[in-house]
Amino acid sequence: MQQAVRVAVFGFGGLGKGMARLIPHRPDFKLVAVADSQGFAFNANGLSLTESYELSQPLHSDSDSIISLLKAHAGEIDAVFMALPNLPVEFFADTVKRIVAETGFKGVFVDALKRTEAVERLFDLHDELREQGILYVTGAGATPGFLTTVAAVAAHSFVEVLDVNIHFGVGIANWEAYKATVREDFIHLEGFDAKRVACMSDEEISEELSVRNGLLKLVDMEHADDVILELAGVCPRDRVRVGGLVDTRNAKKPVNTTVTVTGRTMSGAVGSHQFVVSDEATMVDNVCGPALGFMLRAAEMHQRGFYGLITSADIMPRFASRVPGAQAQPLQAEMALSV
Amino acid sequence: MQQAVRVAVFGFGGLGKGMARLIPHRPDFKLVAVADSQGFAFNANGLSLTESYELSQPLHSDSDSIISLLKAHAGEIDAVFMALPNLPVEFFADTVKRIVAETGFKGVFVDALKRTEAVERLFDLHDELREQGILYVTGAGATPGFLTTVAAVAAHSFVEVLDVNIHFGVGIANWEAYKATVREDFIHLEGFDAKRVACMSDEEISEELSVRNGLLKLVDMEHADDVILELAGVCPRDRVRVGGLVDTRNAKKPVNTTVTVTGRTMSGAVGSHQFVVSDEATMVDNVCGPALGFMLRAAEMHQRGFYGLITSADIMPRFASRVPGAQAQPLQAEMALSV
Repeated sequence: MQQAVRVAVFGFGGLGKGMARLIPHRPDFKLVAVADSQGFAFNANGLSLTESYELSQPLHSDSDSIISLLKAHAGEIDAVFMALPNLPVEFFADTVKRIVAETGFKGVFVDALKRTEAVERLFDLHDELREQGILYVTGAGATPGFLTTVAAVAAHSFVEVLDVNIHFGVGIANWEAYKATVREDFIHLEGFDAKRVACMSDEEISEELSVRNGLLKLVDMEHADDVILELAGVCPRDRVRVGGLVDTRNAKKPVNTTVTVTGRTMSGAVGSHQFVVSDEATMVDNVCGPALGFMLRAAEMHQRGFYGLITSADIMPRFASRVPGAQAQPLQAEMALSV
Repeated sequence: MQQAVRVAVFGFGGLGKGMARLIPHRPDFKLVAVADSQGFAFNANGLSLTESYELSQPLHSDSDSIISLLKAHAGEIDAVFMALPNLPVEFFADTVKRIVAETGFKGVFVDALKRTEAVERLFDLHDELREQGILYVTGAGATPGFLTTVAAVAAHSFVEVLDVNIHFGVGIANWEAYKATVREDFIHLEGFDAKRVACMSDEEISEELSVRNGLLKLVDMEHADDVILELAGVCPRDRVRVGGLVDTRNAKKPVNTTVTVTGRTMSGAVGSHQFVVSDEATMVDNVCGPALGFMLRAAEMHQRGFYGLITSADIMPRFASRVPGAQAQPLQAEMALSV
């Protein structure tokens, strides 16, 4: 990429704000817009953190701020990050349909969706996205996304993958900073579903957390890692397990986040590769960093005419377009994925 | 891929033979040719293991068997695996130049090269490869390749990567089964270089191994992981360290193979992700499996008109084109990387 990717962030809760904090550390990107149900903010020269944090005083009052933003500024946005973890499963596909029908946006989408059904509904939009000139990368956060990609790479020593076990530890000092993420986690608890959680007040969530001493133990979650790894040819979806432990009262992770890929080698031996995530890397680091990596690669592919719907496991996230002090610079821009 | 990728294996030592054993486990591939300095074997219907193992009785006596094979059968081969770890650094670039100039081959190359200089010499061939309609993936074995890719993915939680440490354990029951690999390792030992190793007889190698009790301790190897991660934007090459311990007398690995990526997060914390490779996965599993993954993705891209030279870190290896029993099958072939 010769110029910074101009990024819009949809959803301005914990993840969206984390992305706004991360982008200034990444010279390949420029944050130009944020939008949520309250409205949107846009600045072609780049949003400062102050501006984007002031979204609660909306520049535009519009319940359909995403559509309004793209109608007004489609040509000034290269890529959109969908940081909306806790919305009904049909929201994303419906919103993307509207974007295609109502706005002239022809860029890149990257989402941090979690639920299998939300991701599967997007698959149906492949043809429309392709015709519109949009490249959409789904499941490109931490899980699915970062950890699924590690699993998809790890698979390659085996002739058959028997089990993929993604087990995460998340520590957040104060659940109210990540309301949508915690509400999304609640959906996966026994006795809860999306509808029930949507009707719960923050106080009710808080009470439920108290009963659990702040800990959410999540088992066999409906996470799109399963369908993404199936599409990537790694294994049938029922061999993919996602679970974890979330501590909503301590920033320290209650357990290590691990990805364990068990498979059979051609000699018949069964073994496991394991990836252990640093405790120092927060949820925002592991969601937003990889999301930018998928976005940078997708922006490169989009420039070369690749459109449609793909999953995070289809592309190699790109860390940066150049490294300061690198000796191999001249080759980089020209060489990668040349047609 | 609708049809199996027709594979030629160049170099028929331990790695090449390992690839011939692996391919029957992977329905996306068909082994149609093998070639080494002794000659080549070709069968459009697929080489059986018996045939390919009988290469020592060459079908064609030709020191330039690679060129001869491609002259005779260019249109019947989709992809070539270069399993030639221990040759002078200029061999690969020179051979590829000749292939472009003298044969009509227009397919995919995947190599398991190790040394930085050998990989760098290939970079100069980008334009010629592109014009010829070849997609060449360099550094696509275990290290560089499999483990570099894991490192390149792991980098994404960080805003700066401070250190990449690839440390491998390799156990081989009998060094004579992997002569070229062991000779390549010798080049990295203190007091040895490519020229000296090339002049050593097998007996002299054996004696040197005896002095070392069969163990080769390799430190700060000149491995192309460094330039590949630099090109991928992960970090300057001098932050990449590759070393390991090779036991040439025991199939059991003397130490775990690990990839440790240390970086700084946006909050300023320094942490490390670590990938631990299963002891059950052999060198051949970790080289040849990922090489097929890179090959499958590259074949898909080649069909869509991507030509030139890329590194393993530019593309996501693809495990399989479909999974038996997968529910999401219909989407797979059509969706991935559609133009």
